Amino acid sequence: MHLDHVGIALEDAKEGADLFRRLFGLPLALERTVPDQGVKVVKLSSGESYCEFLEPLSPDTPVGRFLAKRGGGLHHVCFAVPDIRAAIADLVGKGAAMIDREPRTGAAGLPIAFLQPSSTAGILVELVERK
Amino acid sequence: MHLDHVGIALEDAKEGADLFRRLFGLPLALERTVPDQGVKVVKLSSGESYCEFLEPLSPDTPVGRFLAKRGGGLHHVCFAVPDIRAAIADLVGKGAAMIDREPRTGAAGLPIAFLQPSSTAGILVELVERK
Repeated sequence: MHLDHVGIALEDAKEGADLFRRLFGLPLALERTVPDQGVKVVKLSSGESYCEFLEPLSPDTPVGRFLAKRGGGLHHVCFAVPDIRAAIADLVGKGAAMIDREPRTGAAGLPIAFLQPSSTAGILVELVERK
Repeated sequence: MHLDHVGIALEDAKEGADLFRRLFGLPLALERTVPDQGVKVVKLSSGESYCEFLEPLSPDTPVGRFLAKRGGGLHHVCFAVPDIRAAIADLVGKGAAMIDREPRTGAAGLPIAFLQPSSTAGILVELVERK
């Protein structure tokens, strides 16, 4: 299990990503709007990991509510797993509560699932399946 | 430049790290108290990156003030660079403001420097030198 990315919520994902590209030289990996998750996503490569900038499509979305409550900032961490269904079963067996008991498709077209932050010391944690 | 670690501020770093070790199987990489930074640090390995759990040694420390203001959560991101003095010079040349214009020694004994979050879209960003 490795650190796949850190999610950063901002009012303007493109502006934030452009700033990090310019300052740190991180290359653009993905730019996509994901209507069913209510976000625009801009991902930059950073070694084997990514920085994922998230912008809400409206205030009434998970990222929109996060911004209204806390302002822009670090939003979640994501770990890559080889088999997400096996990882979910393992976590549930250890007593963790999942937001997604069934994987859904993330911005990059890969299976993802979020855990309930109440199970992870208040930290929002995502899993992504990378073979 | 690759994502070296994500910093997580909690009231009890050991408890948080133990939870992530148990749930995600991340191995312990480092456990250390750093009095001059006012923190206890517990680091877990996660591929080429780390999850760094930070616990304030007192309320009147940067991490203590963060917890009082925002509660436990994601605190900073850190990028690894091969030459930290060159990276600082490059960032200053691009107009970024540094908290540390001169590198100091981090928990793992490596040179580190933080940027002013006002230069990085409100995100606290650290650099660490890894040859």
